[in-house]
Amino acid sequence: MQLKDLGERKIINMLAKYFEIEYLDDCATLPFNDSFLLITTDMVNEKTHFPEGTKPYHIGWFSVAVNLSDIAAKGGKPLGITLSIGIPRDMDINFINEFAHGAKECASRFDVPILGGDTKEMDFVTICGTAFGIIKQKEFISRYGMREGDVVCVTGKLGKAGYALSNIKKRNAIDNLLLVMPRVREGMAIASLKIATSSMDISDGLASSLYQLSILNKKGFRIYGKKIPIARGAKKEHALYSGGDYELLFTMPKGKIKIAKQKLKSMCSLTEIGEVIGERKVLLVEDEREEIMENKGYEHFK
Amino acid sequence: MQLKDLGERKIINMLAKYFEIEYLDDCATLPFNDSFLLITTDMVNEKTHFPEGTKPYHIGWFSVAVNLSDIAAKGGKPLGITLSIGIPRDMDINFINEFAHGAKECASRFDVPILGGDTKEMDFVTICGTAFGIIKQKEFISRYGMREGDVVCVTGKLGKAGYALSNIKKRNAIDNLLLVMPRVREGMAIASLKIATSSMDISDGLASSLYQLSILNKKGFRIYGKKIPIARGAKKEHALYSGGDYELLFTMPKGKIKIAKQKLKSMCSLTEIGEVIGERKVLLVEDEREEIMENKGYEHFK
Repeated sequence: MQLKDLGERKIINMLAKYFEIEYLDDCATLPFNDSFLLITTDMVNEKTHFPEGTKPYHIGWFSVAVNLSDIAAKGGKPLGITLSIGIPRDMDINFINEFAHGAKECASRFDVPILGGDTKEMDFVTICGTAFGIIKQKEFISRYGMREGDVVCVTGKLGKAGYALSNIKKRNAIDNLLLVMPRVREGMAIASLKIATSSMDISDGLASSLYQLSILNKKGFRIYGKKIPIARGAKKEHALYSGGDYELLFTMPKGKIKIAKQKLKSMCSLTEIGEVIGERKVLLVEDEREEIMENKGYEHFK
Repeated sequence: MQLKDLGERKIINMLAKYFEIEYLDDCATLPFNDSFLLITTDMVNEKTHFPEGTKPYHIGWFSVAVNLSDIAAKGGKPLGITLSIGIPRDMDINFINEFAHGAKECASRFDVPILGGDTKEMDFVTICGTAFGIIKQKEFISRYGMREGDVVCVTGKLGKAGYALSNIKKRNAIDNLLLVMPRVREGMAIASLKIATSSMDISDGLASSLYQLSILNKKGFRIYGKKIPIARGAKKEHALYSGGDYELLFTMPKGKIKIAKQKLKSMCSLTEIGEVIGERKVLLVEDEREEIMENKGYEHFK
C-alpha cells in the first residue's frame, strides 16, 4: 500500500500510535514546573505550499507564521523558533536575504526571536520551522475536552485563503494567502480566561478541523451555515472547505461567549457558529435543513 | 552570487547576523529559571546524506541520533524530539513503519520521547528533527571559552565514518556510518564536572571543527598527529578530514583531564590530542614537524 492511499491523517495516526503519542494536538507539551513547554513543527516546500511566483519574503513570513499559529491555538506565549532551510546550491544569494527578511519581520511582529536553524542543500526549497511556547498548565487549551451544549466559535472571517487561491492572479492574492497573521494575542487572551473547553487552528479548513475535533472528542457539532463569518469576496464553499485560514476555533460553555468576545474586542471578532452535540456527527444547518457536512479540506498525500 | 560560491558556513554566518543570533553553537539556549532549555534542529535528505541502498530503519535512527549529538555536545539531558517527514506520495507504507522503528529504537536507547512532528508530501525523503534538552546554566558547555594552555581532547576513536564512506560496499559500512551512537551520557558526565571550557561535536570532521572553534574563540590549536585516536581500519586522513564521526571535542584546563577520564571510564575513552594556543592557527605536529592543518571537511553547498 502506498502513502497516497492512506492520506496524511492516517499516516499521522499510525506514527502517533507507534511513537506512543497519546494526544494529537496542535503542539506537543512537556511539563515544566506549573507550565507546559509547547512545541510544534511544520515543514513546507515550494512544490506543495507556494503558488508559482511566490517571493522568498513570503516564504519566510509564512514559515514562521504557521508555526506561531499552532502555539496560538493552545493559548501559548511563543518563546522562539528555529528554521531549517533546504535550498538548491545554484540559488541566488538574494533568495536567502529576502527569505530571512520575511521570516524576521513575521517573528518580530510577534516578539519572537529566531533562535537558530540549519541550512542544507536540496533540490527544492524546503523549510522546516519549529516553534516553542510556554503556558501555565491550568490555562492550556487542548483539542480535547469539549462538552455537549458548548458553543463553537471562530476568530476573524473565513474563506480568505480559499478565495485567494481560486483567484491567484488577482492583485494581493498571494499576500492574502501567505502573509498570515497568526492569532497569538487572541489565543493568549482566551487562555487567560480559562473558559475554553477545546481549541485548534483551522489551517486544514473548517470542515476538516471540525471532523478532527469530533473524532478526538467522540462528540459532534451542529453548525449554522448562515452564522459563519465569511471573508470579503469569498464564498461559503471557501469558508467551509478550503485550507489556509489560520483562524482559531474554540468551544466553550454557552454562558462564557460574552466575556470571550469582550476580551477579544480590541483584537478581532469572535463569532458563534454552532454547538457541540453528543452524537459523532458534523451537521450543517442551511435554511432550516440539517445535513451532514462534507468531510473535505486539504490533506497531504491524498 | 550563488549559494555554492558561499558554502554552508558563510550562509549560516549571514543568517545569524541577520537574525541577531550572537553565539553560534551546537544548540540554541533559552534561559529557564536556573537552567537552559537547549534546542537543536537538523535537516537530512536522501540525496546528500544517505548512500544508495540505505534502509528506512537507518534513516530513522540517524535522524534522531544527529540531533541528540548536538544536545550531548552541550552536556544536556535530552527531553524530547520532534520529527518532520517529507516523503513521496507513492512511497510504500512499509517505509514509514521501518523509518519509525529506527527512530524509536534510537530515541528509546537514550530514553527520549518522540513528541510529535509533521508529515508532508515531497519528491525526496527529507527529515527534519528538532531535539530539546535541559541543562543547569552553570553546567552548560558552550563553544566559547577555551583558554590558552587548555588541553584538547576527544571521545572515542575518529575516522570510522570516513572509512565507512570510502568502503561503502563493505559489510557493516552503512551501519557504521548511520547507526550513530551520540555521546549523550558522556556529555552529561563531563558537564556535571564543570571543568570543560568549550565543546562541540565533530560531525563536520575534526579539522573543520577545530577551525570553527578557532574562529569563534579567536585562539588556535596545536594538535599532535600521533595522539589522534584512530578507528580500526581508518586512516589519519579519515580521522582529520571526514565528517560523520559524532564524537565530542572538549577543551579543559590541563590539570582536569585526569578527573575527566576517570569520570568517563565506564563509557568511552577520552584522548588528549593537543592544546589551545594564543595564535589563531590550527597547527598539526607530525614527526616533530609543525605545519598548518588543512581546513577541509564536509560542507554543504560547496
